[in-house]
Amino acid sequence: MAVYTEVTEAALRGFLADYELGELVALRGIAEGVENSNFALQTTGGSYILTLYEKRVDPAELPWFLGLMRHLAAQGLSCPLPVAGRDGVALRQLAGRPAAICTFLPGNWPRRVRPEHCAPLGAALATLHSAGEGFRAERPNGLGPRSWTPLLERCRDGGDAVQPGLIAELDGHLSGILADWPVGLPRGHIHADLFPDNVFFLEDARGSPRVSGLIDFYFACTDTLAYDLAICLNAWCFEQDFSFNVTKARAMIGAYQALRPLSEAEIEALPVLCRGAALRFLLTRLFDWTNTPPGAMVTRKDPLEYLKRLRFHAGAKDASAYGL
Amino acid sequence: MAVYTEVTEAALRGFLADYELGELVALRGIAEGVENSNFALQTTGGSYILTLYEKRVDPAELPWFLGLMRHLAAQGLSCPLPVAGRDGVALRQLAGRPAAICTFLPGNWPRRVRPEHCAPLGAALATLHSAGEGFRAERPNGLGPRSWTPLLERCRDGGDAVQPGLIAELDGHLSGILADWPVGLPRGHIHADLFPDNVFFLEDARGSPRVSGLIDFYFACTDTLAYDLAICLNAWCFEQDFSFNVTKARAMIGAYQALRPLSEAEIEALPVLCRGAALRFLLTRLFDWTNTPPGAMVTRKDPLEYLKRLRFHAGAKDASAYGL
Repeated sequence: MAVYTEVTEAALRGFLADYELGELVALRGIAEGVENSNFALQTTGGSYILTLYEKRVDPAELPWFLGLMRHLAAQGLSCPLPVAGRDGVALRQLAGRPAAICTFLPGNWPRRVRPEHCAPLGAALATLHSAGEGFRAERPNGLGPRSWTPLLERCRDGGDAVQPGLIAELDGHLSGILADWPVGLPRGHIHADLFPDNVFFLEDARGSPRVSGLIDFYFACTDTLAYDLAICLNAWCFEQDFSFNVTKARAMIGAYQALRPLSEAEIEALPVLCRGAALRFLLTRLFDWTNTPPGAMVTRKDPLEYLKRLRFHAGAKDASAYGL
Repeated sequence: MAVYTEVTEAALRGFLADYELGELVALRGIAEGVENSNFALQTTGGSYILTLYEKRVDPAELPWFLGLMRHLAAQGLSCPLPVAGRDGVALRQLAGRPAAICTFLPGNWPRRVRPEHCAPLGAALATLHSAGEGFRAERPNGLGPRSWTPLLERCRDGGDAVQPGLIAELDGHLSGILADWPVGLPRGHIHADLFPDNVFFLEDARGSPRVSGLIDFYFACTDTLAYDLAICLNAWCFEQDFSFNVTKARAMIGAYQALRPLSEAEIEALPVLCRGAALRFLLTRLFDWTNTPPGAMVTRKDPLEYLKRLRFHAGAKDASAYGL
């Protein structure tokens, strides 16, 4: 469910009056997305996405996200472009929330990831990393390695109820990851949440999927570029039974490297970056799992899916595990 | 959450190949609706709604629903019109489910019902009742009075955990409603679920809301016409604190009667029809509430909201309680 805040027609009409988008034709809540309320908005001017930012997003950070999206779009990346009102301002207020209208992107996110998706995804990620250069403002990664110890602390009491021995296992993983965490790798602006539901594809004339857009930049931050690749390896290359598909990984990394070759140090760090990425999603899911009241109307994601991924990465001798 | 079944691009592309709708532009899951999976579908041919029918809908009944929608649309009612494939067939299969594409309706459902919505709603309901004449096939109301006794039985064990004494109070209401239930009132095809999220509005040139479309006919059936009005009185005329807004009721019933005057018998039956309608939604919500496993990813609706409505109707001396 991704509509937390409802918008009355009167409020919407007043809001739209500040734009040059024509008259309201239709508004439909969108099922995808978990952090914000998203609506498909049709006006006589075209199709747009209306986003109301909910409380997990810090309003003070919204100008950075919207600025990054504007920068990336100006570099030719297909991502939502914030639409400014008549006064030139894109970040506004609606129904008591910060709100913005962005352009609508064509395409469809892959419900089942096939190997053919992974090369275009890798290329899109490298393009994103290059396009981000020149956007000066930085945003620290609030869910980076420094956050993992306190996050695990907050799961300590409830964690073993999810699986006996879980916390002890995570303690071991965490101390190993922090000890091995690489320093000095190339940095830049990363998406940090480039899961399949944030990547739209359309088929080209030959029937091959090509990326038509990247969305949901609200975890984007300034961090190690190869860590973004590690997140994608976690998000795109495991099968439903949690076996690792090295064909997908090789396609993704190969296409990434064709545009932005990885350094020796980045390649060497890939296993620990993957362990860290798996732990990051495991911990936020575990936190949500153990801190969601039983009656709450939210979809909790199973944290243990990431324990299986984490164990795979922990068993990786070196980057050859990823087809390199 | 209203996407239960996901559709791969390959399956979708194969499905669309059987239509004359052009190429896929975008697919987005829609947040609204609870019974089926709904997607906003954009093709080079236009905007549509793709519905995958989930297990609460009996596939054998789908031709009746789609036939009724086709009939109503042919009578000029603004409702989703099933789009036939190249072979003339509208009800097809996708992702292992019965599926259909319908036309996209403009408008926006009212997040907050204002008195100005209620007259157009009443008129739209009367129009629907007239437009349904001439559609010969009947569908019994599976959630009509005869279903309420067995439904209450299935809530008996868990009901008092929701509120102490609830089951005894419902036993009393149910026997009274069944004893007073009217027979011989005018019948026809009713929507039976015309809640605000199933009615789209757009403002006319003077800024007044007009109904732009009615959706979600999957509870439609052949039953007492005034019972449909009673459902709408429950769904549209209570405020958030469950006080009854007689201004809204008077506007709704007045506009309804301007197109289809109620008989003396229908007016007299209005309180018991309203009690029955409140009980019907109370019982299905209570059943879902007491039979949903704690971990299930569904939004349960509070059954007690309808107990408050039911008590209001039980206290109504006659139809004057509704502004008549």
